[in-house]
Amino acid sequence: MLGPEGVLDDLDVLDSYRRDMMPLAPAGVPRAVALPADAEQVRAVVRACAAAGAPIVPRGAGSGLSGAANAVDGCVVLATTRMNRVLEVDPDNRLAVVEPGVVNLDLRRAVEEHGLFYPPDPSSYDWCTIGGNLATNAGGLCCVKYGVTTDSVLGLDVVLADGSLLRTGRRTVKGVAGYDLTKLFVGSEGTLGVITRATLALRPLPQAPVTLVAAFGSTAAAATAVSRIVRAGAVPSLMEIMDRASIVAVEQNLRTELGAGAGSAALLLCQSDSGGEAARREIAAIERICADAGSELVHWTEDLAEGRTLMAARRAVLPSLELYGSWLTEDVCVPRTRIADLINGSEAVGARHGLLVAVVGHAGDGNMHPTIVYDPASEEQRARARRAFDEIMELGLSLGGTITGEHGVGKVKRDWLAREIGPVALRTHRAIKAALDPGNLFNPGSMFELD
Amino acid sequence: MLGPEGVLDDLDVLDSYRRDMMPLAPAGVPRAVALPADAEQVRAVVRACAAAGAPIVPRGAGSGLSGAANAVDGCVVLATTRMNRVLEVDPDNRLAVVEPGVVNLDLRRAVEEHGLFYPPDPSSYDWCTIGGNLATNAGGLCCVKYGVTTDSVLGLDVVLADGSLLRTGRRTVKGVAGYDLTKLFVGSEGTLGVITRATLALRPLPQAPVTLVAAFGSTAAAATAVSRIVRAGAVPSLMEIMDRASIVAVEQNLRTELGAGAGSAALLLCQSDSGGEAARREIAAIERICADAGSELVHWTEDLAEGRTLMAARRAVLPSLELYGSWLTEDVCVPRTRIADLINGSEAVGARHGLLVAVVGHAGDGNMHPTIVYDPASEEQRARARRAFDEIMELGLSLGGTITGEHGVGKVKRDWLAREIGPVALRTHRAIKAALDPGNLFNPGSMFELD
Repeated sequence: MLGPEGVLDDLDVLDSYRRDMMPLAPAGVPRAVALPADAEQVRAVVRACAAAGAPIVPRGAGSGLSGAANAVDGCVVLATTRMNRVLEVDPDNRLAVVEPGVVNLDLRRAVEEHGLFYPPDPSSYDWCTIGGNLATNAGGLCCVKYGVTTDSVLGLDVVLADGSLLRTGRRTVKGVAGYDLTKLFVGSEGTLGVITRATLALRPLPQAPVTLVAAFGSTAAAATAVSRIVRAGAVPSLMEIMDRASIVAVEQNLRTELGAGAGSAALLLCQSDSGGEAARREIAAIERICADAGSELVHWTEDLAEGRTLMAARRAVLPSLELYGSWLTEDVCVPRTRIADLINGSEAVGARHGLLVAVVGHAGDGNMHPTIVYDPASEEQRARARRAFDEIMELGLSLGGTITGEHGVGKVKRDWLAREIGPVALRTHRAIKAALDPGNLFNPGSMFELD
Repeated sequence: MLGPEGVLDDLDVLDSYRRDMMPLAPAGVPRAVALPADAEQVRAVVRACAAAGAPIVPRGAGSGLSGAANAVDGCVVLATTRMNRVLEVDPDNRLAVVEPGVVNLDLRRAVEEHGLFYPPDPSSYDWCTIGGNLATNAGGLCCVKYGVTTDSVLGLDVVLADGSLLRTGRRTVKGVAGYDLTKLFVGSEGTLGVITRATLALRPLPQAPVTLVAAFGSTAAAATAVSRIVRAGAVPSLMEIMDRASIVAVEQNLRTELGAGAGSAALLLCQSDSGGEAARREIAAIERICADAGSELVHWTEDLAEGRTLMAARRAVLPSLELYGSWLTEDVCVPRTRIADLINGSEAVGARHGLLVAVVGHAGDGNMHPTIVYDPASEEQRARARRAFDEIMELGLSLGGTITGEHGVGKVKRDWLAREIGPVALRTHRAIKAALDPGNLFNPGSMFELD
């Protein structure tokens, strides 16, 4: 039904479709990879798999960090990467209609030509797909001002377990006709259906950013600055934090000087995209707060190249950690007042297990990525890394946070989801899953196990 | 279980709890009104009603405009108005925790003391409750910049049909652990459970607004200005439109001069709350666009009293129409490029049925309120009004819109919901309802009928 390009079953190829970027999650062996070209082909695959009793694991580019896209034994991996057209950009109504396989960056470029902006910007924005972003409700650096993926979705087409095509949402900015099925499917990690089309809300392209960097002698001082910036009512378009281990890694990797030698224990990076005097006023207020909170060095610039260089340091944290070994990144999100507790606690978890834990994160919304460095070739280090990973989630929950701010539950945090949401919410999840996918066709065992 | 103040069954009192503000929707006679004081009492009511087979119709203040809160025969109306405490305002994490019976205005005032802002502002903000706002996913004038209610909700407590207490969401800004149950319950119109607590996201208090008014000789010219404002990338904090009939009604009622005598056929009201030079720049850009689009008179002011007077004219439209008779307000939302078609078409529907239709609406998001004036004492006028009401929905759908932008489906647009969303989506609604409320305990027959 899919033609010669539509099905892969070569063993080496199957192997390359077994997992996403989360090394800890289990991964089975698929019986085939389906690459449908359109919604009708997705429907055909769903019907055939339902008839054959073969589970379907939907997948985009495989950039996920929770194992949600990992295969289960005997499944068909349904990759939407061939459905990669931007079908429409409508500047007058500020929306785009896309297929799920469109790469995030390609969409950004397509709408930028019209002076428009699609905010969600996960780290993998240059290769992840919109379908994967929708399935995981992905975030990024934009979230502090512009929210996560669900905040930019107007409607979806979804192929359900019986092969029918569900249309949710609408093309209008507002609409409350019926249950909000759109936001139910966003973030459902492929467990309820296969998204075949999305109508996305766009924003006007922001003004060129003003960028500020502030160095602090302690994470506590940096976290105090974050709290005061929030309390002062500032809404920066980006507010990122790097701890000492992240700073040192980037200094070594990029052969640059970020202040670790001078005693900097934390860097805060902020941007304002409000434009002109408004941006300068916002950044100047943040500058004063950082200085009052004890920053040793605050610097800000309207120069775009310099701003990009500063942002490159932030984006270089994970690649730089590869100097030391493989990494495993956490995704806990805590109330903004508990950031210092999470950073210090994560570093203590690392010390306890004899592993480097570097913390980088979206300070503006409390979504932190403590990143554990380990040697995957060592069984014993893998076990320690997993324990550290779990203890950081435990810490996040104890601080009033959540186990995942933007990466999702997938196959790696299943037990933790049950713990975070409790038995009533878990029962509610199972009831919804059973109602929409009674045969447990889609991504079985991801997010939660059936009873 | 609820004590002497907790249950009402006096016939006159029951009568006052039969309906909300939508005259067209059917309303039955409740057997009792329950006024629980806390979540435990809500659970007790739910268990007792489930055991007795008595349906529950949840209700706030009764300001709704869809009949969602209307009683069905033999039901228990569960009003959350006694659960009216603001439990917490946390300025550092920009959130509030409230009970459902808190009046919208009371919450606004409570958070304003902390320099914070709760955006959703339905017209009835001085008497509607947060619980009703959550149930209907209410909007208001704020939506063009700040979204609808769902965009301000972090988490909910909900009593389910089996009496268990479900906690959804979290206190953090971001979080993607599990299905987005929070946004599933928001806007579900009391058909899935009873909300007993909400954690709401707050924003910094905006700057004092700059207000602009522009008069146009035709609705087409005003609508052109709206399209161009959107296309230019402006994000006003408010953008409202009034048609000629609305202008005339307000002029007569408030004995003021809004330009109808001079030939104005539409007024556009805009605000910017960006502050200082940024607001002046935004408003100046809008001024130029209005003038280019043919506005005969554009005026803007930083004077707050004058701004309030202009806004009072907008808010006076529905009360002013009562000079002529009773009104029935529609809530269609169309793509922003189709506003002129909707206004002109609505006026034509009125002319066809010999009824005045005045159009006022949220131009910035395409959510229009064509308002039909009629005499409810006349059976024949009621029938004509209902036909006009339906034809305006038909028109909205034909323009690519939705039957409801912020009021909801309730018991008045049930058949139209089925038409808008189609059989697959309707089946999906029924499956979710059956999964979460298998006995059809909550608000039966609202939004959709079971099969």
